[in-house]
Amino acid sequence: MTKKKVTFADIAQYTGFSKTTISRYFNHPDTLTLENQEKIADALNVLGYRENKLAKVLANGKTEIVGIIVPNLYMHYYSEVLNQIISGYDKYGYKFIVFIGNGSKDTEKQYIEELLTYNIEGLIVLSHTISSKQLASYHIPVVTIEREDKYVCSVNTDNYMGAVQATSLLIKSDCDVLIHINSKVDPAVPSAKRIDGFLDTCRENQFPHELVEKDIGNTYAENYENLKRIVGEIEKRYQGKKIGIFMSNDTHANVLLNVLLHEYHYEGFQDKFKIVGFDNSPISAQAIIPISTVGQQIERLADEAMQLLVMQMNERKKRSPKALKKPIHKVITPILIRRNTTN
Amino acid sequence: MTKKKVTFADIAQYTGFSKTTISRYFNHPDTLTLENQEKIADALNVLGYRENKLAKVLANGKTEIVGIIVPNLYMHYYSEVLNQIISGYDKYGYKFIVFIGNGSKDTEKQYIEELLTYNIEGLIVLSHTISSKQLASYHIPVVTIEREDKYVCSVNTDNYMGAVQATSLLIKSDCDVLIHINSKVDPAVPSAKRIDGFLDTCRENQFPHELVEKDIGNTYAENYENLKRIVGEIEKRYQGKKIGIFMSNDTHANVLLNVLLHEYHYEGFQDKFKIVGFDNSPISAQAIIPISTVGQQIERLADEAMQLLVMQMNERKKRSPKALKKPIHKVITPILIRRNTTN
Repeated sequence: MTKKKVTFADIAQYTGFSKTTISRYFNHPDTLTLENQEKIADALNVLGYRENKLAKVLANGKTEIVGIIVPNLYMHYYSEVLNQIISGYDKYGYKFIVFIGNGSKDTEKQYIEELLTYNIEGLIVLSHTISSKQLASYHIPVVTIEREDKYVCSVNTDNYMGAVQATSLLIKSDCDVLIHINSKVDPAVPSAKRIDGFLDTCRENQFPHELVEKDIGNTYAENYENLKRIVGEIEKRYQGKKIGIFMSNDTHANVLLNVLLHEYHYEGFQDKFKIVGFDNSPISAQAIIPISTVGQQIERLADEAMQLLVMQMNERKKRSPKALKKPIHKVITPILIRRNTTN
Repeated sequence: MTKKKVTFADIAQYTGFSKTTISRYFNHPDTLTLENQEKIADALNVLGYRENKLAKVLANGKTEIVGIIVPNLYMHYYSEVLNQIISGYDKYGYKFIVFIGNGSKDTEKQYIEELLTYNIEGLIVLSHTISSKQLASYHIPVVTIEREDKYVCSVNTDNYMGAVQATSLLIKSDCDVLIHINSKVDPAVPSAKRIDGFLDTCRENQFPHELVEKDIGNTYAENYENLKRIVGEIEKRYQGKKIGIFMSNDTHANVLLNVLLHEYHYEGFQDKFKIVGFDNSPISAQAIIPISTVGQQIERLADEAMQLLVMQMNERKKRSPKALKKPIHKVITPILIRRNTTN
């Protein structure tokens, strides 16, 4: 830990140029001859000079740092989005300071304030606690992903289309009645459109259906008990019918699958129930019976988010930047993945 | 996006103090009277002054930024460690720039060089590609987690103890023979001790056992085919015996469970096979039969890593910092979690 920092004075001494010339090399290299630029570049190599980005940042304001706020990394969806965004470093060159909100609005506000003191160039927000109006008030480029986005740019999966795909697959799987189990979702949140897509598709096909809006808890044990009770009630209501169930995510679809397999034997379950999940999480492929699901194109989602952010960040660096007239909202089509819980 | 930045000149004009006084307020507040400190603090509030951490950093060298390099976020273990480390912000105040290595040594070296230009104060490394000797040569505080760590400080799970716990549980579950399935692991990697713990426990108990060292692939389909073949061979060798299998991680333990349930019916499987996994990943609790496993204490692991890093970073800020005589290696005890795949 004793490696000495190479200073402009060291470089000047080594090359025989003045410190002013060395400074010009870093800030206005085009004012030096190519020959002298090369001499200095060689000296930097020999001396092991390490560029100080922070000093440069103070001069030009480009930190190349983007802040990201995710609600948690427990849910695979968030860790995969984060994975894809951070991997965009190779393409866009931005570095990412990551915060995990854990559902606390105050903490997230404090995070953002802290990020602003680091002159971050932009912000990607996946967590739900801070309104888009508040986010817009920070006056820095923002892109949100799958959350309320009225006042800021956003990228979302086409949740409506995903629900149409899932519901249509259940209809084609010879079901007699369709059920969608979901928590009560704020209509401003993009995933609320999954409910609309389900209801509209059933109505258009004049297909018997039921929406079960219930919070089924946050742990596997709670999910299991709640889904066992809900399935018991559904079965009583639709005796002798083949029931198609569209779950709002794959984690819950897997718990439902386990409930059904423990209550019925394998053949009995396959004859009576069809299941479609949402997200294409690893669990949907690793379940004892691989689960049909609606896959989000997370790689594209992340890339579109970065493009939208880079566009805003570049605009800001212009001499007279123009604010967007209104926020841009991009939508990514999901992909239906047919596995073994549907026909 | 037109909010004007509040400068020292603005604060000086508002308060009637000189710019030098304002500068002293930020750098040596104790040289001002309490009354004057309060006047300036009030002015900052009224004017909406936003601290520029980067400017401060240039003065005192404390960026409060730590770099983290993870191999990927696909595996739950890495995303959970990252989750716990980043959540340590509340306790330690450090911000984290996160990189994902995706297995490329050159990319990871480039990341580290880039991080160093940002004057990061320390580095946490979970990826395997760069040797600890190379990491030590960067001359900044480093802590590694669960990887080769000869020349740098590290925090690891007590993998040997975990394997002893798993093997002992299988012995207690009335098995006749024990199998450990693992890939060929470099002996310098901490998880290699899982193999030692398994072999030593079997030998000490003079218990029939076999080590299957095979790479079973990177996808669910590959895992499934390979494990199906391996189980077929094992069954032929140990006909009529009760077989206990210790898997090197929960993802593979779940695939094995699915193979066995598809090949045997439920009762047949329970009579003939016992399984223990490693990690306590979500899949171990969400599997069709909840899987017994060795749980890593990831929250403690992450906290010990931060403590070890903060200790080194604080030492560096002293007027005459002392280098560590030799790297410190901390070990966290794992916790055995008994579920339904053992007695």
